[in-house]
Amino acid sequence: MKTGKLYLIPVKLGLEGRISDIPQHTIDVAIELKSFFVEREKSARAALKEFGLKTSQSDIELFDIGKHGQQQGFDEQLMRCFSGEDLGLLSEAGAPAVADPGSRVVSEAQAMGVEVVPLVGPSSILMALMASGMNGQNFAFQGYVPIQKNERRSFLKRLQSFIERDDQTQILIETPYRVQNLLEELSSHLSPKIQVCLAMNLGLPNEKIEKRSAADWKGEKLREKKPLAVFVIGH
Amino acid sequence: MKTGKLYLIPVKLGLEGRISDIPQHTIDVAIELKSFFVEREKSARAALKEFGLKTSQSDIELFDIGKHGQQQGFDEQLMRCFSGEDLGLLSEAGAPAVADPGSRVVSEAQAMGVEVVPLVGPSSILMALMASGMNGQNFAFQGYVPIQKNERRSFLKRLQSFIERDDQTQILIETPYRVQNLLEELSSHLSPKIQVCLAMNLGLPNEKIEKRSAADWKGEKLREKKPLAVFVIGH
Repeated sequence: MKTGKLYLIPVKLGLEGRISDIPQHTIDVAIELKSFFVEREKSARAALKEFGLKTSQSDIELFDIGKHGQQQGFDEQLMRCFSGEDLGLLSEAGAPAVADPGSRVVSEAQAMGVEVVPLVGPSSILMALMASGMNGQNFAFQGYVPIQKNERRSFLKRLQSFIERDDQTQILIETPYRVQNLLEELSSHLSPKIQVCLAMNLGLPNEKIEKRSAADWKGEKLREKKPLAVFVIGH
Repeated sequence: MKTGKLYLIPVKLGLEGRISDIPQHTIDVAIELKSFFVEREKSARAALKEFGLKTSQSDIELFDIGKHGQQQGFDEQLMRCFSGEDLGLLSEAGAPAVADPGSRVVSEAQAMGVEVVPLVGPSSILMALMASGMNGQNFAFQGYVPIQKNERRSFLKRLQSFIERDDQTQILIETPYRVQNLLEELSSHLSPKIQVCLAMNLGLPNEKIEKRSAADWKGEKLREKKPLAVFVIGH
């Protein structure tokens, strides 16, 4: 009997994204599966429905890997691969195991000897980097900015040193309601000439990408108050 | 008249890749275009042919942005956007402006006020990261390893310090004929417990992903002598 595999399945970047941004091969693989590791059940079901899953929603099994639960690991579910079942891993948006808790499932699978297959699809981090026009030969994704005010400031200063010392492009994400706030902090704490590219709602109907120097962002009020945002900063 | 845009168009990761890894929306946009910035004319023509370009090959225009030429910039070609023409930017493999010279075209476009639109498609860097099971909340792409022996060693030691200090996953690429060599260096210069994931020929029929500790890679001889390879190292 063939051992099952763990397929890593990217999904749209938001509800209003285009299904035609998901490659046919990714859909072809996903619709054959019956069991999925997911971050949120509701959005996973919506994504799978749009893919055109062959199994009815009542017969699929979803394993919640949400941020707060599951300290005990996923070996029980992953064991199914040794009975020949293929499993899927979905992100809430974009590519699984990048900027989400999915990497734990992948590393457990590998530790058990389960083969992992990454599939193609949208990633707002990659798309923001492409669209920034900044150094794509050396870049770092730094995740979310810390919440505490003093920590934020020293975090941003540290990123600036990577840009200045290594010409390493820095990528950040921020929760929608703090985007305006982060933009103000970037414009006041970074050197005036550092470039800041703000990629908003990528892959969605209201996609907007804007790039200016830190100095030129000063005083800017975003029209959209809570965009999905990726910040790319560099030269 | 509407101003034209610059579309960033990912392509397959190799000749033998699946066209079904390219999303329909990406193809729909690309086949309408007539002029493209490309890294290598031959591979660009093959990619566009497979997309099913609407314009005949003899009527399309390709602008070479290859590694060695073009110090003079791309403003002349980009000016066409102000006559209403949309332009494309293709990579040789994967996503343009990531680990290739395309970012110069993007940044010039932005400086001129041309809107840039990133499209969805394969990226071996992102797929290798997904498949590594390592920290996807903090990662850096470090490009190619330096060629000089001493520089290589201190470069690898430096990457190890980012892993140990910040739990920052490190991503590297290496030219195919030096992959075996780099694997040996990683296994002897890194701390024995550091994990090394070698993702070979991603998206191609002979895709192979293998992850072991630096110590466990020792003495390994790769079956394939010149794979397309992405290395991911971390915890």
